[in-house]
Amino acid sequence: MSSPEIERLIGLLAKLPGLGPRSARRAALHLLKRKDTVMLPLARVMEETAEAIGSCGICGNLDSRDPCGVCADPGRDGAQICVVEEVADLWALERAGAFRGRYHVLGGVLSALDGIGPEDLNLGGLLARAELPELREVILALPATVDGQTTAHYISERLEGRDVAVTRLAHGVPVGGELDYLDDGTISAALKARRPV
Amino acid sequence: MSSPEIERLIGLLAKLPGLGPRSARRAALHLLKRKDTVMLPLARVMEETAEAIGSCGICGNLDSRDPCGVCADPGRDGAQICVVEEVADLWALERAGAFRGRYHVLGGVLSALDGIGPEDLNLGGLLARAELPELREVILALPATVDGQTTAHYISERLEGRDVAVTRLAHGVPVGGELDYLDDGTISAALKARRPV
Repeated sequence: MSSPEIERLIGLLAKLPGLGPRSARRAALHLLKRKDTVMLPLARVMEETAEAIGSCGICGNLDSRDPCGVCADPGRDGAQICVVEEVADLWALERAGAFRGRYHVLGGVLSALDGIGPEDLNLGGLLARAELPELREVILALPATVDGQTTAHYISERLEGRDVAVTRLAHGVPVGGELDYLDDGTISAALKARRPV
Repeated sequence: MSSPEIERLIGLLAKLPGLGPRSARRAALHLLKRKDTVMLPLARVMEETAEAIGSCGICGNLDSRDPCGVCADPGRDGAQICVVEEVADLWALERAGAFRGRYHVLGGVLSALDGIGPEDLNLGGLLARAELPELREVILALPATVDGQTTAHYISERLEGRDVAVTRLAHGVPVGGELDYLDDGTISAALKARRPV
């Protein structure tokens, strides 16, 4: 159909999340029509970013520095560590701007089905950080799925006996959300955790 | 939030069609987690493709050769030229596999609103090709929008007086489509162009 070079580009673009074969074709055409203004700059930025960015040795965040910006910031509260599954979750919490402690990125959750055990996650680092004298609280911001909750349970067990509070995010009605569109589990959880007005 | 390098990558990815800011962030993270298997190969393929691919001097198709594969193929029928707005439309027709003639890519359609006049389109090349003795038919496969139809009308006027048939694609019910979901204009057009069974 189109030339093998273009097909190869489409094939690689189609591997990006959010791009199927059809939208990858549109993206490839968009790039080819804007070689000098979009395609080559994007290729160069991808190479530079791949070179510059690495995982933070302390928390697993992605940054050009190691330790990362959050771990190196003296203004962040070392008494709290928020445990997340992925860097995307860390970014989401940072966007909300509601947390001023530090993070720990597991890089996944335990999954018997996918064969992901504790040794596949960044758990050793978390247990080492749990020994730090300033640490008071570990907040488990893990997904509310079976695997996420299994992981949360596993971590809270491993942290038992230490002088550290282990908490999790509240379940409830999303702000701006309508009851009619919520699943039964969330409504039950929100009702159980009801608060005085 | 995240480092400026990552923000720059997200900003460029968000310019691709089909990727908004949120999916660009997911794509950037996907790339950063697969630097050697996805990110660097994609960057390299983008640079190689930008280098290799250019517009066909005859029809405007994108290919690594000039004339392109379609124009250079002696098996294609030189008596028919199918005029399309964009290379994507040419690809769509090639995927359908129903046309064995040659193409002409306009690179847009006339638009008074966007200030696109005849001199902004690849029209001179089409009129020159219309002089070729073997040409019998120009098929206008332009979008069924006001601008597309204006362009089709303009081209058919410019081709008047030449010994060349000017045709357009049929309007009608899409194959597999249901009447209930079709707009009134399409239903009227399909009724008017009804055929004996």
